[in-house]
Amino acid sequence: MRSFEKAFISRSNTTPMSPLQTDLYQLTMAAAYWQAGKAEQESVFHLFFRRLPFHGGYAIAAGLNPALDWLEAFRFSTADLDYLASLRTKAGRALFQEKFLSHLGDLRLKLDIDAIPEGAAAFAHEPLLRVQGPILHAQLVETALLNIINFQTLIATKAARTCTAAAGAPVIEFGYRRAQGQDGALSASRAAVIGGCRGTSNVLAGQLYGVPILGTHAHSWVMSFEDEAEAFDRYVEAMPDNSTLLVDTYDTLKGVDHAIATAKKLRAQGHELSGIRLDSGDLAWLSQQARVKLDAAGFPEVKIVASNDLDEHLIESLRHQNAKIDIWGVGTNLVTAADQPALGGVYKLAALRKDDGTWQPRIKLSEQTAKSSIPGRLQVRRFIQDGQLIGDAIYDIDRSIPETVTIVDPADPIRQKTIPAATDFTDVLQPAMQGGRRLITENLDTARERCQQTLASLHPGILRLKNPHAYPAGLEAGLHQHREQVLAQYR
Amino acid sequence: MRSFEKAFISRSNTTPMSPLQTDLYQLTMAAAYWQAGKAEQESVFHLFFRRLPFHGGYAIAAGLNPALDWLEAFRFSTADLDYLASLRTKAGRALFQEKFLSHLGDLRLKLDIDAIPEGAAAFAHEPLLRVQGPILHAQLVETALLNIINFQTLIATKAARTCTAAAGAPVIEFGYRRAQGQDGALSASRAAVIGGCRGTSNVLAGQLYGVPILGTHAHSWVMSFEDEAEAFDRYVEAMPDNSTLLVDTYDTLKGVDHAIATAKKLRAQGHELSGIRLDSGDLAWLSQQARVKLDAAGFPEVKIVASNDLDEHLIESLRHQNAKIDIWGVGTNLVTAADQPALGGVYKLAALRKDDGTWQPRIKLSEQTAKSSIPGRLQVRRFIQDGQLIGDAIYDIDRSIPETVTIVDPADPIRQKTIPAATDFTDVLQPAMQGGRRLITENLDTARERCQQTLASLHPGILRLKNPHAYPAGLEAGLHQHREQVLAQYR
Repeated sequence: MRSFEKAFISRSNTTPMSPLQTDLYQLTMAAAYWQAGKAEQESVFHLFFRRLPFHGGYAIAAGLNPALDWLEAFRFSTADLDYLASLRTKAGRALFQEKFLSHLGDLRLKLDIDAIPEGAAAFAHEPLLRVQGPILHAQLVETALLNIINFQTLIATKAARTCTAAAGAPVIEFGYRRAQGQDGALSASRAAVIGGCRGTSNVLAGQLYGVPILGTHAHSWVMSFEDEAEAFDRYVEAMPDNSTLLVDTYDTLKGVDHAIATAKKLRAQGHELSGIRLDSGDLAWLSQQARVKLDAAGFPEVKIVASNDLDEHLIESLRHQNAKIDIWGVGTNLVTAADQPALGGVYKLAALRKDDGTWQPRIKLSEQTAKSSIPGRLQVRRFIQDGQLIGDAIYDIDRSIPETVTIVDPADPIRQKTIPAATDFTDVLQPAMQGGRRLITENLDTARERCQQTLASLHPGILRLKNPHAYPAGLEAGLHQHREQVLAQYR
Repeated sequence: MRSFEKAFISRSNTTPMSPLQTDLYQLTMAAAYWQAGKAEQESVFHLFFRRLPFHGGYAIAAGLNPALDWLEAFRFSTADLDYLASLRTKAGRALFQEKFLSHLGDLRLKLDIDAIPEGAAAFAHEPLLRVQGPILHAQLVETALLNIINFQTLIATKAARTCTAAAGAPVIEFGYRRAQGQDGALSASRAAVIGGCRGTSNVLAGQLYGVPILGTHAHSWVMSFEDEAEAFDRYVEAMPDNSTLLVDTYDTLKGVDHAIATAKKLRAQGHELSGIRLDSGDLAWLSQQARVKLDAAGFPEVKIVASNDLDEHLIESLRHQNAKIDIWGVGTNLVTAADQPALGGVYKLAALRKDDGTWQPRIKLSEQTAKSSIPGRLQVRRFIQDGQLIGDAIYDIDRSIPETVTIVDPADPIRQKTIPAATDFTDVLQPAMQGGRRLITENLDTARERCQQTLASLHPGILRLKNPHAYPAGLEAGLHQHREQVLAQYR
């Protein structure tokens, strides 16, 4: 795979880059911060989710590098400012004052961002991003950061689950036609590769990210000929080293026979058929029958590709039924995360810097304590024993952290885990941007490998698709107590 | 609202436009058509769905104008061709021959497209698009057409359902942060407005499409002040004519009291508070309490906006509970169509032109007859009586259509409806592109008004959210018989 540099060059053709990729209220709040003299007030926001997606045991962070692309390109153009100047209130007055718009025109982001790197695991309440800087700046980037990180984390997680179900057999992402818009497709292809997919059918993702692109042919190819046998022969003429024949246009097992006939002719010309694809019917039974036919005909190397509304649960079930499927083509359910199409990440103010330079924690209350936010400037300490991750403690970098850390589940404070002193750890959030200057540029390979390492370091029970083991992730006990006090204060 | 022209000017900033926005197999099939000497064979494909989304009674077509934008911009650049030339087969040979790539470089689309206009109703099996032209051309555009039309039709339909539930109260689309990628947000904002939403929080959608943009403020504004009352006072200073105050950061009903205090000061300065927003808790009860407080304080005109994971079913339920909600802010569930995040539209070859100029029907079989495709070159005749739509007959434009039309449900051929002769009708598919030349450019207002007219012309039972009345849509009886014959032939 190639690095991101290519994506930068072509990015104007792909992911849109505009500071107007935001909710209107971010701009009206920015105007109000500016007018209230608070524009430069130093603030800390965290981007996090409250519940793991898909009733699963983990999430895979993704979207950081595209988010940094967007932040780097953040500038209000004259056209943007003209548009904002054209907006009117109900009373017919300008919504935004000219001086404020001129402030926006001069604005260069001065944010520090620390983030969980792409491909690493993330759990509920852990900041995927910690954004620090002038409150006006931090507010203006909220919507785009949520949009990018929410979706790519969702799909990387779904892909990791799907690949876990496939147990090492390649999973190819085929979802373009059902994705939610053009970027729904492109971002999903990218995140699916981070999560473990071997490739995608999406040619633009191949061009921009250097990921392997793969494909077979459609029913229309077969239907454009008088008979299937001829269609197969003609297809391999054009793609002698690269043909996977779709066998279910009329009758699947007759289709397999036709594919075998074509494979024999191809072999006589010094080439080998790559595979056949099943796209309907009983995939367990048909794949077994097809395997028998292919093996008997002397084609044990011809792969069987299966597609048709697959997801991790169907793949697991088909494997348990001993389906003879070598490669899984997964589309709609992967790229739309059909069983939970949004992650639900939020972006919450957690601290404000006082005039004396110290940080004042801020909290959003909720009728449920667990839904209240976590105050402070947060980091995640991840403990490791014998190569396995054994627990995550969210802590406040402005408060001391004891040698023996106790992790408290904020949703159920009786659930606690104490980590022995001197256990190895890493602090998961890493600097990604400082004063608006980007610090990291990672390619997809790095993120993908990090994801593989992460999955290997999680107990298999945590990877389970249904009723997974709950990984111990929560608040460092001192932060938990401090949060309880702040909550009591607010009430 | 402004017209699309603005979108054209700025479109390089927004929706990506590349012929590589496709599945790889479209390009390998194109190479194979070219090599088989079939590139110029005239073909007809239909883009249609087999099942109405959301268990609903109708769909609202959307995405045609963005699809035409993409088709108009269709050109392989040198960079695109270089990328394709770099692809290798497993055997290390070039995947695509140079001559084929040079054919792609010279390619200018010569397609005729007829389509159901944006905002009109569509039903199962009806072609949303009929694409006619050289098979190589028709194949290359499949993926992008499906991606654009599937998603926008899905969201326009979801929006129409949501607005139906709101029964005339404005619905605002607030979903940017949870949308599937940047274009998932932008396309959803566009389609939501077609389906009836009054506006969006998405500023870029405002800039590109001229749709009204709206918003309130976030919890972070309130949390950035020492107390809520001060936060409200300072917000309305910046936005005196345009303030909707979010009242649930700490305690909702105290928040309403603070908003009333702010509204009184604002009135003393000659301005009026626009509204308050409820974003958590029991929206039925809280809205009633808030209404009583606002009315008692002399603010019957202050609107109550509600948000928090709303969808059409929750809105209907809240209305039945007599919630005092004036404006509905709907996000995640609308922009991701959370209960069914993909439409499932397909693109099937339906006819090939023979050397004698006549059209030969083509069909894709399936184990279920209902899932087999419909052969021929199709049009939809929509019958109208007393301003109400009474039935749709899919017919083949190359076959005669009788004066008295009988509609046959392909999923249940016993279900039939006969339309009296001389009933008014319109043929729904309209020419959109001819020989690659675009014929229509519609603005969002036109699509939005067409949707309103459509909904008004459907029996209320068809608009019902659950267990709707089934609109009579199916095959003209002659086409149905013809299809049965073709199916028998293939088997």
